[in-house]
Amino acid sequence: MPYTPPDQAVRTAMIDRVKFNEDGLITAIAQQHDSGEILMLAWMNAEALDETLRTGRVCYYSRSRHGLWRKGETSGQVQMLVDARLDCDRDAILLLVDQKGVACHTGRRSCFYNALRPEGIVEITRPEVAVETLYGKA
Amino acid sequence: MPYTPPDQAVRTAMIDRVKFNEDGLITAIAQQHDSGEILMLAWMNAEALDETLRTGRVCYYSRSRHGLWRKGETSGQVQMLVDARLDCDRDAILLLVDQKGVACHTGRRSCFYNALRPEGIVEITRPEVAVETLYGKA
Repeated sequence: MPYTPPDQAVRTAMIDRVKFNEDGLITAIAQQHDSGEILMLAWMNAEALDETLRTGRVCYYSRSRHGLWRKGETSGQVQMLVDARLDCDRDAILLLVDQKGVACHTGRRSCFYNALRPEGIVEITRPEVAVETLYGKA
Repeated sequence: MPYTPPDQAVRTAMIDRVKFNEDGLITAIAQQHDSGEILMLAWMNAEALDETLRTGRVCYYSRSRHGLWRKGETSGQVQMLVDARLDCDRDAILLLVDQKGVACHTGRRSCFYNALRPEGIVEITRPEVAVETLYGKA
């Protein structure tokens, strides 16, 4: 089913109920909608959340770059929104998405590849795409 | 397969590699290991993470109570650890767990029940357990 954006009045009313932290941010989890795989964790401000709900394409807030981060804008690895769900405290959001390609900047499908095992930290997946392919050569 | 805890030296080395934030915390996502359902998002400090890895029973850090939060200690709704995975930046952790009963303090299986839909915020699940059953009467 294609994503249907709420209109502006509904979006504004929903975003008014979100509990952003002291930096104006909310934690966002991206999950592949059909497989259930957790892809990444990032942050959104009100503007990023509004853009995501309006366009159906996921936009985060980059804490390092201090600005909107339209996921896949450079790499092409976009996330199309399927459904968004606030938690009970309304200070975290789960994004059910359709991830094109890989979510992780290392070229892996998921960012959560460092398993804590009896023998130490074990990388359980390998990159599927070379970083140079994602971002070009320096 | 039952969870096997790393020994103390391995745990210490792993926790040394975690990037806790300025408050000494890391974001933790709890996911039911077999269904893939996202149960909740919470926080851990180094002590909570060490206890979780040592005991195989999930312990968070409560930002409101400023102390360790042994999930299920009051309600009985414990989370048994199956696997733990740090992300690429090592500032978020995914906990694959076996959730006994419900994860949410509202009596719902998952905290993420407020869907952002064209008509507004829609509660997509109902409580499975009464709050009085979880926490007793005041």
